Amino acid sequence: MRHINVIGIGAGDPDHLTLQAVKAFARTEVFLLLDKNEQRQELVELRLRMIEEHARPGHRVVQIPDAERDRTTPAYREAVDDWRRRRSELVESLITEHVGPDGTGALLVWGDPCLYDSITAVLDEILAQGRTEFSYDVVPGVSSVSVLAARHRTTLNRVGRPVRITTGRRLAAEGFPPGAEDAVVMLDGRGAFAGIDPEGVHIHYGAYLGTPDEILVSGPLADKAEEIARLRQEARDAKGWIMDTYLLRRTEG
Amino acid sequence: MRHINVIGIGAGDPDHLTLQAVKAFARTEVFLLLDKNEQRQELVELRLRMIEEHARPGHRVVQIPDAERDRTTPAYREAVDDWRRRRSELVESLITEHVGPDGTGALLVWGDPCLYDSITAVLDEILAQGRTEFSYDVVPGVSSVSVLAARHRTTLNRVGRPVRITTGRRLAAEGFPPGAEDAVVMLDGRGAFAGIDPEGVHIHYGAYLGTPDEILVSGPLADKAEEIARLRQEARDAKGWIMDTYLLRRTEG
Repeated sequence: MRHINVIGIGAGDPDHLTLQAVKAFARTEVFLLLDKNEQRQELVELRLRMIEEHARPGHRVVQIPDAERDRTTPAYREAVDDWRRRRSELVESLITEHVGPDGTGALLVWGDPCLYDSITAVLDEILAQGRTEFSYDVVPGVSSVSVLAARHRTTLNRVGRPVRITTGRRLAAEGFPPGAEDAVVMLDGRGAFAGIDPEGVHIHYGAYLGTPDEILVSGPLADKAEEIARLRQEARDAKGWIMDTYLLRRTEG
Repeated sequence: MRHINVIGIGAGDPDHLTLQAVKAFARTEVFLLLDKNEQRQELVELRLRMIEEHARPGHRVVQIPDAERDRTTPAYREAVDDWRRRRSELVESLITEHVGPDGTGALLVWGDPCLYDSITAVLDEILAQGRTEFSYDVVPGVSSVSVLAARHRTTLNRVGRPVRITTGRRLAAEGFPPGAEDAVVMLDGRGAFAGIDPEGVHIHYGAYLGTPDEILVSGPLADKAEEIARLRQEARDAKGWIMDTYLLRRTEG
């Protein structure tokens, strides 16, 4: 039976790869790479270098542009559903065209596939439609959230307390009211941290985590919001893209 | 300067180690191991096998019993504070007695040091007291939460939605009311999932994740709570300990 390895490849440092991921690379005959249509050439090259280093001789690499999501519509959920449908068609054709009936393919995911990634849902959707058969498994990876905490030498949660993992969109819509749980914010293209009441809030911010371009800033949000907004804008202008995340923590209570 | 590597070693599969962790093992002169005073001999041996496989020739291993937390008192926070103080003294003496002034020691953490682990707080407390000098860094690891999602081939969050990482104690105290966010529950010694209203809740449960004894159960909580409670009791009776975690997700909405 055709098999697909979904492999978490870590947040940007090639040494984030687990031994399990390395072994999955070595079992893979064909790597199916979806490229975001953005200026992330560095990431594309980094991924290719990982494959070069860990894949078996004779492996193949197929690279195609990923489906694009409509970011102009306010209908977020619908845009995501439509995008996922097109992605599902794309991934299905990749599998049927490039992975033989007894072959092994791999899909690589930055960070950990369990956080804000849709590839397992896409594969389940393809299987549910019943046209293409395959088995798949998921190799967990080091998420940017873990790297954020590690680089700041802190924990996501305080003793016995919960932490919320959420999106920039939600933070912007809901704010961060007093009494709110500590929150890790991902997928924040617009810098929602600058729009909340900073009183009594500490931020641990990280961009390009685990890479030579890593940016780390930590401190009271009231003091740091402007600096972070400036740094991220400068970095985005210089590199053409940014990947960042942050932890918001109430300093009292 | 004396240096300490805090290394996340994954959830129980030796292949969860990252290449970064393997390199940190190889740089370490002395491994400082704190043993929980429980019947986790398997975990102790697994850790020693990882060291044997990845450490440099001539490395040393120091093993001492970890400080115990008073689990009988209702004063949770105070018990944790007291425990952390005693741990801090213990870790400080380990460092001063076994890591030379220019030496490199390592503290190993199951899973990822960023979730419900106090070792970075302990090290910060030692540094703040100013008697012992050292630098330290944290190598992120694959958490049991990531492995739970990977083994169930699901994500922690639904599209664009938040997820809450919390404790069994909190779940038992607060319940899981309609409208509550999807939640990952850790440190649940008493099976709090069995005490909440199961209506409309799906559970993804995992114990001994990534090990040969792994238990996975998934389904509507109303159908599965009893089975999970029985399986975990049987497993705990048989092995003397259990490490488990689960994801609660509302099926509607």
